[in-house]
Amino acid sequence: MKLLYPTSLAFDPTKLEGFHTELHPYDPKKPLPENLIDAEIMLTWVNSPENLTDAVKRMKNLKWIQSLAAGPNDLLSAGFDPKKIKITTGSGLHDRTVTEHTLGLLLNAARRFYEMRDYQLEGKWAGHLGGAQPARPDDSFRTLREAKVLVWGFGSIAKCLTPHLTALGAKVRGVARHAGIRNGIEVFSDEKLPEVLPETDVLVMILPGAKSTRHALNAERLKLLPKHAWVVNVGRGTIVDEDALVNALEKGELGGAALDVFDPEPLPGSSKLWKLKNVIISPHAAGGRPLGAEELTARNLRRFIAEQTLENILEA
Amino acid sequence: MKLLYPTSLAFDPTKLEGFHTELHPYDPKKPLPENLIDAEIMLTWVNSPENLTDAVKRMKNLKWIQSLAAGPNDLLSAGFDPKKIKITTGSGLHDRTVTEHTLGLLLNAARRFYEMRDYQLEGKWAGHLGGAQPARPDDSFRTLREAKVLVWGFGSIAKCLTPHLTALGAKVRGVARHAGIRNGIEVFSDEKLPEVLPETDVLVMILPGAKSTRHALNAERLKLLPKHAWVVNVGRGTIVDEDALVNALEKGELGGAALDVFDPEPLPGSSKLWKLKNVIISPHAAGGRPLGAEELTARNLRRFIAEQTLENILEA
Repeated sequence: MKLLYPTSLAFDPTKLEGFHTELHPYDPKKPLPENLIDAEIMLTWVNSPENLTDAVKRMKNLKWIQSLAAGPNDLLSAGFDPKKIKITTGSGLHDRTVTEHTLGLLLNAARRFYEMRDYQLEGKWAGHLGGAQPARPDDSFRTLREAKVLVWGFGSIAKCLTPHLTALGAKVRGVARHAGIRNGIEVFSDEKLPEVLPETDVLVMILPGAKSTRHALNAERLKLLPKHAWVVNVGRGTIVDEDALVNALEKGELGGAALDVFDPEPLPGSSKLWKLKNVIISPHAAGGRPLGAEELTARNLRRFIAEQTLENILEA
Repeated sequence: MKLLYPTSLAFDPTKLEGFHTELHPYDPKKPLPENLIDAEIMLTWVNSPENLTDAVKRMKNLKWIQSLAAGPNDLLSAGFDPKKIKITTGSGLHDRTVTEHTLGLLLNAARRFYEMRDYQLEGKWAGHLGGAQPARPDDSFRTLREAKVLVWGFGSIAKCLTPHLTALGAKVRGVARHAGIRNGIEVFSDEKLPEVLPETDVLVMILPGAKSTRHALNAERLKLLPKHAWVVNVGRGTIVDEDALVNALEKGELGGAALDVFDPEPLPGSSKLWKLKNVIISPHAAGGRPLGAEELTARNLRRFIAEQTLENILEA
C-alpha cells in the first residue's frame, strides 16, 4: 500500500513508520510520476489545480485523501467525489495559527495599530491615540476588555480562540447550527441572530466555505450590528456579502472590518475595500501552517487499516 | 480632612464614602482654587506641570499624594519630596491595559500587520505574507508559538502579561533585580544578561524610568541579541539607548523594534526611527486608562487613617 505525502511542507515521514505502508514524497504542483499513480492514500497541501484534476483522472486505486487544509474545497472543485473516495480534512491543524492571527486582527482593530501606521508613514505622532484615554468609551471598540464578541461558526478554531479572548476580559458568545453551551461559552442557533447581533461589539466570522454559508453575513444582518461594531472574517471570503459590507462601511453603519479572506482571492485591485477607512486587509495569512499533520495522519492511518471511521471525515 | 480627586478620568467618589473625608473634584490642568489648598490628600492623573509646581508651593497641609500613574516621575520633577510627603503610585492599575497593548505589538510584529498595511495603502496584495508558510521558520520571529520571549522588568505588568504569552505557546523568561521563580516564570538577575540575550527571539522591556535604568538596553547589550530578534519597549523611553537602537537597526543587526515609549515624547520628526524598516511606532498608547483607581484609593485611605504603611509607597 502506497501513501503519498506532499513536499509543500516540512513533513516527517518517520512519524508514520510501523505501518505496512510505502511512504513516498511527491510534488503537489506537478502531475504525479507514473510509479506513484497506483497509490491508495494521498495527503494534500496547497496542491495545484492541475495536479488535482490530473490525479482525479489517473489515480484508479485511490481510496482516501487526507487534506491538510481546514476546508478541502480544492479537492471538491477538482472533481473528487466524497461518495467514492474517503476525504478527511485538516480540521484542528490550523486552530493555533488562526487563533494567533485572529487575536492579532482583533487587537489591531481595537488598539488602532493600522491608524498608527498611517501616521508613522507620514512621520507624524498619532497623539490622539496615545496618552490619557477613556477606560471604556461608550459605543466604540477600543479594547477587548468587556467587549461583547460574537463568534459565528463555533468549531475547533473558535474553541481554541475563545479562552484567549475571555482571558483579556471579553464577553464571548457563539453562533452555530446547534445551540448549547460549548467550553463554557453560550452558543446560539442562527435563528437568534436578530437578538444577538445588536448586542455585539465585534463579530468574528469563522464559518467554512459551502453553499449553505454563502453570504451568511448579508445586508440585512449587517444592519442589525451596532454602528461601532467591527466585523472580522477569518473563515472564507464567500461567507460575507462583500458588496453589502462595502456599502455598510461607506455609509458609516459599521465601525470597521478586519478581513483575512476575500471572494475572490487575491482581492482585485478594483475592490473598494482597499481604500475604505477602518478596513484592515490581511492576505489570507491566518492559517497556512498545518501543525500536527503527521499525528493526525497516523491516527487516521490506523483507523483506515482497521476499517474504522476516519477522523475529520467529509460527509458525502 | 479633604481629599482631592482629578476630573481627568471617570472617577466614582461614592466608592470612597464611609470615611470621614470631604471629597472634592479638581481640574488637574489649572492651579487649585483657594478653598482646596488646605487638602491633606490629593489624587493625581495627567496633571499639568504648572498645576503640580503650583501645588508644591501652596499646599502646606498635603500629607499624601496617590498618583494613578505607574511611575510618578511627574511628581518628582515638579519638586514633591517623598521624604516629606507620602507618595504612592498607581502600580497595578495599568497591568491589563498595558498587557493588551503589548500583546498587540507582539502580534503586529510577528504577523507583520504593519507590512500588510503598507501594501494595503498601495492597493497591493501582500502575497508573500499569506498562503502556505513555513510553520516555524528558523531565525525569524513570525509567531509567538515556541518563541523565546525575555521580559526585562518583572513587576506586576509582566505577571499580568506572561500568562497570555505562554497560552499562545511562547517560552517566557524574565530579568529583574532579584533572581527567582515568579508565577512559574524563571527570572534572572541582570548579571545573566550575557547568557540569556543571545537566546532571545523577542525582548520585552518593561523597566520603570529612573537613573538606574537609563539606557539599560545599550549598544553592548543590543549586540548580544540574535539578528532576527525584536525589541518591544512599553516601559519608558529612557531605558533604551535610542541612538544605539537606530544604529543596530540600520546595520541589520536586529529583526525589528515595536516601541510605545520614546525619549523625548512626542518622538521628534527628525528621528530616524520613523522611516526605518521593521519599526513600529505607537504613541505612548499602552496604558493611559487606570483601572480600579477608587479601590486602590479606598484601601490606602483606610491604611492612611490607621497610620499603617501604604500600598505602592514610593521609597524616599
